[in-house]
Amino acid sequence: MSGQQEKPPEQSADGQVPKAVVSRLSLYLRELQRLLRDGHETISSTQLGKMLGFTDAQVRKDLAYFGQFGYPGIGYRCPELVAKIKEILGTNHAWPLAIVGLGNLGRALLGYRGFTHQGFRVAAAFDVDAAKVGRQFEGIPVYHLDQVGEIIPQLQIRLAIIAVPAPAAQKVADAVVSAGVDGILNFAPVTITVPKHVQLEAVDLAIELEQLSFAVVNKLSRGE
Amino acid sequence: MSGQQEKPPEQSADGQVPKAVVSRLSLYLRELQRLLRDGHETISSTQLGKMLGFTDAQVRKDLAYFGQFGYPGIGYRCPELVAKIKEILGTNHAWPLAIVGLGNLGRALLGYRGFTHQGFRVAAAFDVDAAKVGRQFEGIPVYHLDQVGEIIPQLQIRLAIIAVPAPAAQKVADAVVSAGVDGILNFAPVTITVPKHVQLEAVDLAIELEQLSFAVVNKLSRGE
Repeated sequence: MSGQQEKPPEQSADGQVPKAVVSRLSLYLRELQRLLRDGHETISSTQLGKMLGFTDAQVRKDLAYFGQFGYPGIGYRCPELVAKIKEILGTNHAWPLAIVGLGNLGRALLGYRGFTHQGFRVAAAFDVDAAKVGRQFEGIPVYHLDQVGEIIPQLQIRLAIIAVPAPAAQKVADAVVSAGVDGILNFAPVTITVPKHVQLEAVDLAIELEQLSFAVVNKLSRGE
Repeated sequence: MSGQQEKPPEQSADGQVPKAVVSRLSLYLRELQRLLRDGHETISSTQLGKMLGFTDAQVRKDLAYFGQFGYPGIGYRCPELVAKIKEILGTNHAWPLAIVGLGNLGRALLGYRGFTHQGFRVAAAFDVDAAKVGRQFEGIPVYHLDQVGEIIPQLQIRLAIIAVPAPAAQKVADAVVSAGVDGILNFAPVTITVPKHVQLEAVDLAIELEQLSFAVVNKLSRGE
């Protein structure tokens, strides 16, 4: 920072913040949360960038999309920047989530502590299996898929995770959208479509493996 | 393409291809594989970019890191570009994988068809639970964690997925590295360290939810 003025960042063609910037916000947040836990109160853009392999200019440019958060001669105040980034990401309040599909993946996600740490709380799970409906897993009640229209508005759930087999994914997406969900995270290995007002993110776990195989094949050296 | 010469792409400071470029290769590959399944033989950079929300210049610039793949007046030939990208990512041959930890997440990953589709084959699983060791899950033999040093070289496994609870992750990483693994995909919600010659990717599923919550809070409009 050191009082230096950053150029206003380029906006993408549609005036939106680029997706890559938003992904990096999550990475900054994780490092800042770790710094806080370790008792650090401030950090410079250079140090924060170095921890993640980015330049200080990248860190400052990314944050400049959302405001001026640094202090000359100090850098960023960790507690303040954590609060700001959580506000930007919308995770400064707990989001009640629904998980649809309680196979191995759904059950793994139900117990995934990383969600709770970041302000997400699974409020309901849905399945069609009579052996699961009416029970609780990890303390979360399991409802029948036919009940989404009733339970989702009742629990004010806005985000749904789809973890059903590929052939069922579109039908489930249609059902949760009708029930009023604003955002869907799709783990089913199939492309689904949703109306324009609904946000959709797809998780493709093979992409992570491809990135790893590229790194191994090219014997990338990692800065440490 | 249309015979236009692309400027050679900027190299990152250390002469490596930027990570974001490699991630986009995976996205191009998925779309091209889908196009092939639907019977398309060729595609322009404009069309390919549009399917993913990128400009044609971005597509051409990303691919230019690795060579010239377009044909003037034709665009890209889908089968050829699929083969090229798989070669670049190192997924043109099947990688035998190990999965360590057969809780819900490990079992979900064991059955994740997305891996097989992209050239990854789970060859062995490891756990410490006597109720699982010696059995098969999804046709994959489960060995005791103490056997990594013997099984990993024997099956020529170079990539390992860590899906154990956070407190056990570092110990498991050390064990698979000693056994000769070149790359680790870590799903445990904890930072692990590995020697410099070993590649490491960490999966943080909460990041995907944060991206979704950002999109919902900011009511992003999606190009379709």
